[in-house]
Amino acid sequence: MRCSIQSIGLAAALLASAVSAQTFQRLGTCPTLGCVFPPDQADFLAGQYFDIRLEVHAPKNGSEAIGLPPDEKFTFTIARGNETAKPVTEFFKLEEPKLEKWNFTWYEDLFAKDAKQPSVVDVTSKAYRRVALYEPGEYTATLSYNNGSTTTATWLVRDLVEERKAKNIIFFIGDGMTTNMITAARLIGHKTINGKYQSLMQLDKFPVLGHQMTHSIDSFITDSANSASALYTGHKSSVNALGVYADSSKNPFDDPKVETIAEIFHRLTGGLVGIVSTAFIADATPAALTAHTRDRNQYGHVVDTFLNGITNYTWTKWDGPDVLFGGGAEQFYNSTLGGKTYQDKDYYEEFAKKGYKIVLNNTQLQAASSNEKTLGIFSTSVMSKWLDRNVYKVNLNQTLSPTGDKTAALDQPGLKEMTLKAIDILHNRAGDKGFFLMSEAASIDKMMHVLDYDRALGELLELDDTVKATVKKIQDLGCEKETLILVSSDHGHGFDVMGSVDTKYFAAQKEDRKKRNAVGVYQNSGLSQYTNTGNLTYTDSNFPSNWSPRYTLFQGLMADPDRRETWSVHKDGPRKPAAELVKDSGDVYVNPKDGQGGLLLNGTLPLSDEQGVHSLTDVAVFAQGPCQETFGGVYNSIDIFFKMAECFGLARGKA
Amino acid sequence: MRCSIQSIGLAAALLASAVSAQTFQRLGTCPTLGCVFPPDQADFLAGQYFDIRLEVHAPKNGSEAIGLPPDEKFTFTIARGNETAKPVTEFFKLEEPKLEKWNFTWYEDLFAKDAKQPSVVDVTSKAYRRVALYEPGEYTATLSYNNGSTTTATWLVRDLVEERKAKNIIFFIGDGMTTNMITAARLIGHKTINGKYQSLMQLDKFPVLGHQMTHSIDSFITDSANSASALYTGHKSSVNALGVYADSSKNPFDDPKVETIAEIFHRLTGGLVGIVSTAFIADATPAALTAHTRDRNQYGHVVDTFLNGITNYTWTKWDGPDVLFGGGAEQFYNSTLGGKTYQDKDYYEEFAKKGYKIVLNNTQLQAASSNEKTLGIFSTSVMSKWLDRNVYKVNLNQTLSPTGDKTAALDQPGLKEMTLKAIDILHNRAGDKGFFLMSEAASIDKMMHVLDYDRALGELLELDDTVKATVKKIQDLGCEKETLILVSSDHGHGFDVMGSVDTKYFAAQKEDRKKRNAVGVYQNSGLSQYTNTGNLTYTDSNFPSNWSPRYTLFQGLMADPDRRETWSVHKDGPRKPAAELVKDSGDVYVNPKDGQGGLLLNGTLPLSDEQGVHSLTDVAVFAQGPCQETFGGVYNSIDIFFKMAECFGLARGKA
Repeated sequence: MRCSIQSIGLAAALLASAVSAQTFQRLGTCPTLGCVFPPDQADFLAGQYFDIRLEVHAPKNGSEAIGLPPDEKFTFTIARGNETAKPVTEFFKLEEPKLEKWNFTWYEDLFAKDAKQPSVVDVTSKAYRRVALYEPGEYTATLSYNNGSTTTATWLVRDLVEERKAKNIIFFIGDGMTTNMITAARLIGHKTINGKYQSLMQLDKFPVLGHQMTHSIDSFITDSANSASALYTGHKSSVNALGVYADSSKNPFDDPKVETIAEIFHRLTGGLVGIVSTAFIADATPAALTAHTRDRNQYGHVVDTFLNGITNYTWTKWDGPDVLFGGGAEQFYNSTLGGKTYQDKDYYEEFAKKGYKIVLNNTQLQAASSNEKTLGIFSTSVMSKWLDRNVYKVNLNQTLSPTGDKTAALDQPGLKEMTLKAIDILHNRAGDKGFFLMSEAASIDKMMHVLDYDRALGELLELDDTVKATVKKIQDLGCEKETLILVSSDHGHGFDVMGSVDTKYFAAQKEDRKKRNAVGVYQNSGLSQYTNTGNLTYTDSNFPSNWSPRYTLFQGLMADPDRRETWSVHKDGPRKPAAELVKDSGDVYVNPKDGQGGLLLNGTLPLSDEQGVHSLTDVAVFAQGPCQETFGGVYNSIDIFFKMAECFGLARGKA
Repeated sequence: MRCSIQSIGLAAALLASAVSAQTFQRLGTCPTLGCVFPPDQADFLAGQYFDIRLEVHAPKNGSEAIGLPPDEKFTFTIARGNETAKPVTEFFKLEEPKLEKWNFTWYEDLFAKDAKQPSVVDVTSKAYRRVALYEPGEYTATLSYNNGSTTTATWLVRDLVEERKAKNIIFFIGDGMTTNMITAARLIGHKTINGKYQSLMQLDKFPVLGHQMTHSIDSFITDSANSASALYTGHKSSVNALGVYADSSKNPFDDPKVETIAEIFHRLTGGLVGIVSTAFIADATPAALTAHTRDRNQYGHVVDTFLNGITNYTWTKWDGPDVLFGGGAEQFYNSTLGGKTYQDKDYYEEFAKKGYKIVLNNTQLQAASSNEKTLGIFSTSVMSKWLDRNVYKVNLNQTLSPTGDKTAALDQPGLKEMTLKAIDILHNRAGDKGFFLMSEAASIDKMMHVLDYDRALGELLELDDTVKATVKKIQDLGCEKETLILVSSDHGHGFDVMGSVDTKYFAAQKEDRKKRNAVGVYQNSGLSQYTNTGNLTYTDSNFPSNWSPRYTLFQGLMADPDRRETWSVHKDGPRKPAAELVKDSGDVYVNPKDGQGGLLLNGTLPLSDEQGVHSLTDVAVFAQGPCQETFGGVYNSIDIFFKMAECFGLARGKA
């Protein structure tokens, strides 16, 4: 539930509070009682900054209790290749840090949770801050504890060339976007005649296709925080963690950090960074570029890191992005207007003090100069959806003005407007230094979470339209040979289309069971009615001409809460399929107001889940531009970081 | 239901009878009253044989009735590029065929069907047999009818070079296999440590990845017959059709044909053809290589076409495959043993008469010479599944001997054994002519249809193991530079994995609703337990070491019949999740014998569907070898035919 929640308004956003990631595993990436972070199998870019965290666990009860106190005299050595292992302080020329102590609890399984019998673990720990490995090859990191136990981590510094091949990288992320969704979006947005599409998605025209594995480090399903961290840092992490390996301490700001592509690129080359998202801008996918915390819900902190970087420890050089566009004004206006910001500061003021131009609607965005660092915040909470901005406009009439004055945010840009302006600014300001731009279509995920398939596919088509406009703009700027354009995703949702629904027949059936016969599969799916303009002429457009045809898509997720399905567009705004009928009961039923006249269906998800959940599937990677050939085939999500870093020439064999 | 049905035993196979493809469309690919097959937008390989069928429809009632009798004086012309249109008889130098007449009925929608009010259509028609277009470019085919109405089809003969780049093509088809399933199979078959796989699928190692669009010509969901036809002929067709465009006549053997890759390759080069499948060998995916009928259920006919090709019309040169391996003995032994064959012949005898060596079990297969044309039929009906052959062997104890003597078929080869032997034979016999081998893992689809996820993933892992062994064998033979290896699929099923299930906790809950809390999502998914060997050592294997761990996959389809889920392996053989409680009622409920102790779930599929159904999603294409670079990116299923034909150099600019 805490994952990429559709937060409409501040109250909902605040509900998404931190949840311990420690249920059923004592600590992810630490199966033994001695923990090394970065853990075994970690890969590094030569010269990438990172922190080291060591923990020794002394379980006091439960199946792992061994009756020992937590070891305070553990030691840690590092050996490069076959060289002699050196104490970590000698290896990195560091002072010995002070010993830290804490304890934490976890449940060994659901039976222990039901019985409220947590396992308690005492911990001793040390952390070593901002180190780097420069020489490629294998390193052996060994933690010795409990008089003879050892935990060994094999680290690999990858052998990458330092030559820079791309001046710019534009990385589009369709949050939660799968191949299944791309296929469905193509079906409703583009017309076929006798099995041949008369127009294609821009994604279909990319020369190189890959698949990336999205799984988390401690579980095979990821959330957007740790998947984004994998894409940006080359290090998979735990669910909810941004740019750190999650340790077991109570402090969410002391976890061992890894440097991100944005940070490394800016530190080494002075290149500019742009961040664009249709989410609230403190959401995980944009946040993971600069934030370092195991708790993605520290939204105020995230916004501060955009501007100021990491301030509680010595870390990388950071000057703020040149472009920061999105929603989430509640982390910018302070509590006098109902916002919740870091130290209750007004972050519009904080950004302005550092020289940012501030824009709060599309008119201001379009009018703004392309010569200034620019902050654009266009709504409180998540930005409005393409379908509401373009088709069901009455739904914009809310209280989500980015000023915090509770008026409506009617003049919001779309992803395309934000991205094209971002490119203008970055291109103008970067000179020879180049830029890295991340642009996220966030509400593919958010709308899939609430089973609002139409809105999700609308967001996907808007992403494709944005990519199309971007490809053209980069060509118009003459930058296509020096700009790598990537489009990928951070994880999947189990979604597909199995046929069509005759909504007229569906509505005419009185019995729920009979309504199922309105579904047409195989040949009875027929052809898409979404592109039917009522005549045989065809207009090239990237969007459906009719969102509410008689024959709709028979589509859905693979795991749901209780819900009621009509397989029809929800004209009155994003769905809320399920809800707690008794507040805080943790017992979710179908929302009585959603999907009236629809088919009542029992879910399979845990009773506390109001929304659909992420899935396992590999997701697609589309690449064009310099280094495109390195993105073909199947690889791990972390490889995207290394491929981008190689294309930017960011490896450094020496300090 | 008729689509890739899991036919256990002959009775079930016979249930899969022909269903009209004409519900809710008068006739696919013919929106107007004049029909041209091949229709508008058809692409051709230069020199590919095809038939032309023209129809003029005169609806007698319903919304399209215009009160005219069927036109008997329609005309048909063809123009190349901007040249003058010529009558078809002149263009192809053909005799005018005789006029045919018939009528057919269809339902305009579900209301008409419920009211039993069919629309009746009178038809006049002509067919022109075995023609070909040689010169690349556009052709305009025009049917004129009803005193001034016209239907125009634009045909494109693609501009391909005649140079041959590959000696051999091995085309693996994972029936119904999606990227989601590949990801799930990797998870249970291969182990991760801290987010890094310690071994990979063979598919993951292919250098080139593409996506193909699988939709049908007349509907956006396909079945295996017309998707296979698209892959093999470059022509999408209608659901249930094999190597033809489906016309509206009653005869299933007079539909307009298109020549397949196997036929063209053999006709032009004398190259050898091998066909391997774990299905009954008359099933759609193997059948589409030689059969030409709009009704995939003409199994006896299909087997005859393997041996004799098309005999009712002049067609292509065909000498039978050099290898034909699979199940489906009931189309080989005749009715005295309970089989159902073409003209009640014994097809073991028919194949033997034409010089085929016959093998009926794995021992005979392994012992057979690699110098003979070989027919291997290893079971009645679909072959046994990897999981039953290797883990739950007691399930093999059935009555499915390929001899028809009702003993068990205990000694069945797997896909790997069949494929490696096929390569031996084809390589030995082909000399310089090369070979085309299609090898199908059929039961990925068949087991997904019955919601038996474990068996489906077992079949997928067996496919991957087969591909791995094939890559090695081709290298050992020194043929890797002249052999294109492709792995793809024909369509999807809406499948994914969303987390894990604690089966112990699940079983301990008395209430259905409470069982849902046994599901773990996000971090509570944990790590795969299928590769857990009970200690920390790891053995490189392509299969799970434990199919029944405490924490199983929380997996499923997106559209189901009523069913009961346990999310546990079905140890007693393939599932039958739903059934008619009253025979022939068309009203399917959960099978009381399936999934006992599981969670009862209502389906969303039409009430007559006992099985899951195919889905829309694009499927992956993995390529290595000559021409591999042409298989990257996103394209239509028919493009696979053209890419293979180009790699074999099969285009012919002159007759």
